Amino acid sequence: MSEQSVAKPKLVAVPAALPVTYEDILAAEQRIAGKVERTPMRLSRTLSEITGAEVWIKFENLQFTASFKERGAWNKLSQLTEAERRAGVIAISAGNHAQGVAYNAQRLGIPSTIVMPIGTPFVKVEHTRKHGARVLLHGETMAEAFTYGYQVKEREGLTLVHPFDDPAIIAGQGTIAREMLEKAPDLDLLLIPVGGGGLISGNAIAAKHLKPNIEIIGVEARMYPSLHAEMRGEEPVVGGQTIAEGIAVKQVGRLNLEICRALVSDVVLVDEPHLEQAISLFANVEKTIAEGAGAAGLAALLAHPARFAGKKVGVILCGGNIDARLLASVLTRGLVREGRISSLRLVGDDRPGLLARVSKVIGDLGANIIDVAHNRLALDVPAKGAEFDIMIETRDAQHTQEIVDGLAANGYPPRRL
Amino acid sequence: MSEQSVAKPKLVAVPAALPVTYEDILAAEQRIAGKVERTPMRLSRTLSEITGAEVWIKFENLQFTASFKERGAWNKLSQLTEAERRAGVIAISAGNHAQGVAYNAQRLGIPSTIVMPIGTPFVKVEHTRKHGARVLLHGETMAEAFTYGYQVKEREGLTLVHPFDDPAIIAGQGTIAREMLEKAPDLDLLLIPVGGGGLISGNAIAAKHLKPNIEIIGVEARMYPSLHAEMRGEEPVVGGQTIAEGIAVKQVGRLNLEICRALVSDVVLVDEPHLEQAISLFANVEKTIAEGAGAAGLAALLAHPARFAGKKVGVILCGGNIDARLLASVLTRGLVREGRISSLRLVGDDRPGLLARVSKVIGDLGANIIDVAHNRLALDVPAKGAEFDIMIETRDAQHTQEIVDGLAANGYPPRRL
Repeated sequence: MSEQSVAKPKLVAVPAALPVTYEDILAAEQRIAGKVERTPMRLSRTLSEITGAEVWIKFENLQFTASFKERGAWNKLSQLTEAERRAGVIAISAGNHAQGVAYNAQRLGIPSTIVMPIGTPFVKVEHTRKHGARVLLHGETMAEAFTYGYQVKEREGLTLVHPFDDPAIIAGQGTIAREMLEKAPDLDLLLIPVGGGGLISGNAIAAKHLKPNIEIIGVEARMYPSLHAEMRGEEPVVGGQTIAEGIAVKQVGRLNLEICRALVSDVVLVDEPHLEQAISLFANVEKTIAEGAGAAGLAALLAHPARFAGKKVGVILCGGNIDARLLASVLTRGLVREGRISSLRLVGDDRPGLLARVSKVIGDLGANIIDVAHNRLALDVPAKGAEFDIMIETRDAQHTQEIVDGLAANGYPPRRL
Repeated sequence: MSEQSVAKPKLVAVPAALPVTYEDILAAEQRIAGKVERTPMRLSRTLSEITGAEVWIKFENLQFTASFKERGAWNKLSQLTEAERRAGVIAISAGNHAQGVAYNAQRLGIPSTIVMPIGTPFVKVEHTRKHGARVLLHGETMAEAFTYGYQVKEREGLTLVHPFDDPAIIAGQGTIAREMLEKAPDLDLLLIPVGGGGLISGNAIAAKHLKPNIEIIGVEARMYPSLHAEMRGEEPVVGGQTIAEGIAVKQVGRLNLEICRALVSDVVLVDEPHLEQAISLFANVEKTIAEGAGAAGLAALLAHPARFAGKKVGVILCGGNIDARLLASVLTRGLVREGRISSLRLVGDDRPGLLARVSKVIGDLGANIIDVAHNRLALDVPAKGAEFDIMIETRDAQHTQEIVDGLAANGYPPRRL
């Protein structure tokens, strides 16, 4: 199976020939000190209990723009020459990189231009503009936006701030692992979300230098298994609407791939339900907001519990920028998944009082009715019958079963939808 | 108006005669050290920008049981005699106090009994049982549960752990202000949620000792203005379903009131919409989960911006235990409040294609349709007409107006619901 581990854990020191060195990361740490948050890192006892691993969370969602992207952005921007600063920078991104660059460019007095595809949610455009960036909306896809962005860069003499395929960006992101291992030097492995590979490549170098026998494992959404495929010599097949849009990247960067081949043991893939469940757990247990990509590390622990059982795992919660409506939907769907919200379909005889009788059974058993829909036009119901869909909220899956049994015992056997 | 300030700021040192001393709080700090989290405290630049105050947040929602209650519980439980420990403790609570007592009693090897009213949400019962407590469900109301709990206490020789009216509980909660002023010694005032008064009384003593000119201001939900009324010599009129059920307390404790009269400048009241808005802001800006009571401090800043403008304000985010469904609902309602989700009512002629034409107008203007309901039975519509309610998601309130104007221009003037 292509999902098996491709290689033994790479228990080796960092090769000398890589495009970014440990010293580059130390230098980045000096530059970002006092400019970018040293975010908290905590052991989560409850998530450890749930997953069977010893789970340490690095809360990069608590950066000012709510993602780790600021580390690389500051490290890159603060090294520009006076002439480059005056001319300004450009980035092509509709996500966290856009905000990381715009915010930190503004702090450094550097004019910034951000190219986003047409149709980028207004909130993201607004957040980026708020940091003083010139936002150019162009192209139907990221690829088109990229092409256009390069043209603008050439025409205006701007410096490109690449989201991942740049040594300064990689070195900036790599400062996270130093903070993690300072707090928890015994970590057995790091689980790191992978989009273009900036986060994992930088942190692989830092972690492997400090602790050569630490394992570095990437996490990708199953719809975008770019690094997973590359490490197996396969052609990546990518696409689809993942909730982890922050790591929905078609192609890993060139420098990033080179570093990953040397230092990353494996990449695990996670499906959408585990990503959603991880977002819900971060909210319900850790009282923190994770975006889909930010929840990928925890999703990997949920998806592959046997693989990580008993290990001391460092998880980078890399971002918290999730739309409020999407978050609300994920939380509600989480209750459905746990069996606390269920839809029951009932067929009755449409005499007055049917709903009252059914409601009484449900209420007496301690559940709440949260929605009722009548389908009088359903053809699989007798013309004088009535079909109801009743949405109920229960304590748990077992309680839901009690309601189903109770309705059946009272002559209204429901169908679970 | 009874809502005006009742007193000048009490810029005085702590009177010697109060039932809890600063030394009691120092002793509590020694006891809880290493046992209860020293939670983070951070300046929120964005919330400062939004409210006009300099907003410092103390994240007590990051305690293990997600509220400050552990501080008082540990301080109380760890001082019991051997005989008291063997006999066990009892608490009457359906909320955070129940979990704080059960969890810490278990860690100290003390048997605990928690009395909750019948109908307490199962999740809360489960969380409390998980910590090894014996949970007794009794009484329709908290008052009935209290009466029953006292009977059990007497019959079984248990020690009562009162949620607020106890010097050891008050001293434990007071450790928060020491941590806050250590991090931000220049705070002008503390905004502290008030239920029974345990949190505010302890922290008033600590803060006033360290900084006599700091102002201590309580925050209550408008439905439960217990301390607000007491401090004005009025009879409290309380009741209703507030989202801040953690501070929905009918009567402030005796010791707590005595301390508040000496040290609290005033109590401000907050309405439900501000509580909801504060929960949404904590999630969207700070990426953190606040329960209703936990959001009360920020709600006060939103409700009374002029009063706190320019001040350095310490806000205790005192708890994060909010049901996922309620949180989802608050987040969605937040979008409605911001004008990003709106319902429009349209009357058409019920010819085929009407919905298609309306949908096209909305889609061309860049909004999403998220729900459609047909009301063919509405009597204010001609019999051959049709009434639709269309729920749309827009970028913001201005975009919604563009949709309304666009529909009107196309012959379908909508009514905003």
